[in-house]
Amino acid sequence: MATEHQQQPTHMRAEIMEQPAALRATIDALLPQAAQVAALAGRARQVLFFARGTSDNAAVYGSYLIQTSAGRLASLGAPSVATAYHARMDLTGVLAVGLSQSGQTVEIIETLTWARDCGAAIATITNGAGSPIAELADVALVTQAGAERAVPATKTFTCQLAALAVLAIGLGADLDTGQLRALPEAVAELLAGADGPAFGLKEIVAELASVDGLVVSARGLAYSAALELALKIKEACYLHAMGISYADLQHGPIAVVDARTPAVIMGPDSGPTQDAAINLARRVTGAGARAYAIGGGAGLAAACDRALPGPALPEWLAPIGLIVPGQLLTEALSRRLGIDPDHPRGLSKVTQTS
Amino acid sequence: MATEHQQQPTHMRAEIMEQPAALRATIDALLPQAAQVAALAGRARQVLFFARGTSDNAAVYGSYLIQTSAGRLASLGAPSVATAYHARMDLTGVLAVGLSQSGQTVEIIETLTWARDCGAAIATITNGAGSPIAELADVALVTQAGAERAVPATKTFTCQLAALAVLAIGLGADLDTGQLRALPEAVAELLAGADGPAFGLKEIVAELASVDGLVVSARGLAYSAALELALKIKEACYLHAMGISYADLQHGPIAVVDARTPAVIMGPDSGPTQDAAINLARRVTGAGARAYAIGGGAGLAAACDRALPGPALPEWLAPIGLIVPGQLLTEALSRRLGIDPDHPRGLSKVTQTS
Repeated sequence: MATEHQQQPTHMRAEIMEQPAALRATIDALLPQAAQVAALAGRARQVLFFARGTSDNAAVYGSYLIQTSAGRLASLGAPSVATAYHARMDLTGVLAVGLSQSGQTVEIIETLTWARDCGAAIATITNGAGSPIAELADVALVTQAGAERAVPATKTFTCQLAALAVLAIGLGADLDTGQLRALPEAVAELLAGADGPAFGLKEIVAELASVDGLVVSARGLAYSAALELALKIKEACYLHAMGISYADLQHGPIAVVDARTPAVIMGPDSGPTQDAAINLARRVTGAGARAYAIGGGAGLAAACDRALPGPALPEWLAPIGLIVPGQLLTEALSRRLGIDPDHPRGLSKVTQTS
Repeated sequence: MATEHQQQPTHMRAEIMEQPAALRATIDALLPQAAQVAALAGRARQVLFFARGTSDNAAVYGSYLIQTSAGRLASLGAPSVATAYHARMDLTGVLAVGLSQSGQTVEIIETLTWARDCGAAIATITNGAGSPIAELADVALVTQAGAERAVPATKTFTCQLAALAVLAIGLGADLDTGQLRALPEAVAELLAGADGPAFGLKEIVAELASVDGLVVSARGLAYSAALELALKIKEACYLHAMGISYADLQHGPIAVVDARTPAVIMGPDSGPTQDAAINLARRVTGAGARAYAIGGGAGLAAACDRALPGPALPEWLAPIGLIVPGQLLTEALSRRLGIDPDHPRGLSKVTQTS
């Protein structure tokens, strides 16, 4: 039933493949702005992100990266505290960072205006050059993803993550800019391998086409990639996909995992979360459920029923590559389910909420 | 198939019914401690919560309540920043608040110890008198829920919310302690009405017994109740239940809502989120999905297919009552599905995660 979509490449697939170029353009444009971030936020004691949807998942990466590498508290704020409750608080010493792919989201504009009134400095990350969210910032990091036509965001998401890496560097993180500059090539290599039969996408798509739902789990820096993959699957495949940390999954939601509800476990090839990923995979398969790995190295792949290779990247950049196999999986599964991934039901590209 | 569980009352149902007494004991015990909180945290510029699972959902209530009523930034921290990454940061001026029903969760103990080493003051909320988490705090708010035998937390959750209300009052929130003292009676009235046919639980349970999954949505202060109801349904009914804010739902996940995936929309009877609840209900039913209200007043009930009454409480206390119809729904749906809600598969009462 999905043949019409399989005949011609989707915008979503084209935009997934454009990511190496989009990332390179973004990194080249934004790395020189790290000094602006440093000047704005040198004395900021903490970072407070405001975003929705995919941009919120990007902010999760930013919060972990800044806390683990730049020695500052970073967390996600709730826009309704500003827009619905008009709360008053002192935000001096806070760098408020708003993320919006379009730069048009009225709720985020209102929230950032409120944060400034409360004393915060404002930075923004958007793909919308000249957009309201770019214009209102003290420092705007404008990603260079180009126009994105598919409703499910792909290249704008990974470019947001690259911008967040620049933000962390501006905040003094002890991170290697050379590794960031090498990121586009690592994503290109992963994409080059993704069309081969060894990549294993086809078998996983076939198995996921008949599930009741699935769990997508990661921990630490990679948690953002799990949240984002779960959101993609909800948007483009209409499946119940729960994005959750390894730890929170075991505080109750693990009960949903069974023969008709598998888990996708994502992780980097290095770092302190590897053992937890393998332990989770064993718990999932022990419960009679299938486990699929994305990344995580040979140990995680061995503990899972099937695995997609992750990127060859250091842990702090791994989430930017880990989402890529997930994007390919989403796009293929969407078509397999007879859906047009470029135009999911009920959604449009710029979301306004009250 | 569920007859054996229907014959004898479950622990879960008994513990739901015990909530008025548990809340009264907790409020009586803790309100006098508001002065201790004030002395500890009078100069704290912000609050940082650490918790997992149900306790994390309670923390969401605390973060909204403190921000909207006590004029301080409040957010949820990520334990892995401490336990996996051993990040170093300056937390002077921060009140770190750890929540754990048992008081035994090693991950939270380690995270609070780390927060103290970083300079934070420490408060804890636990039902475990004498537990490690009670012992390590500068101020421990020990809830008086009594022993909880069902694995899905009910009375310990609502007592955590009551403790968070005391915390907010200690932080200087402009809230009426008389309203807090009247809370147990409002919950008792709601429970007294819940056995009557007018309550409408039976019809909703019958309809939810055959869904593919569901969405549970709220906004602002009540968002915590939606997250908690979704977690209960996952734990005790093994259903995919997505707890999400009205706003985030419309940034993508709304695509999953359809004839086999209804939405439960929760809200208070007053406050700034009412119109958004009604608008969301119309969008859900417009997509061909069923909408169920819990609370939200006559306007939300009219916009939904079916409705359960919420509590007669001011907005700031409404989440403590709004979860109660959700607990009753979960317990009845679990039995209807042939599950023993007291002992969900794969779970135990104290969760340890690596």
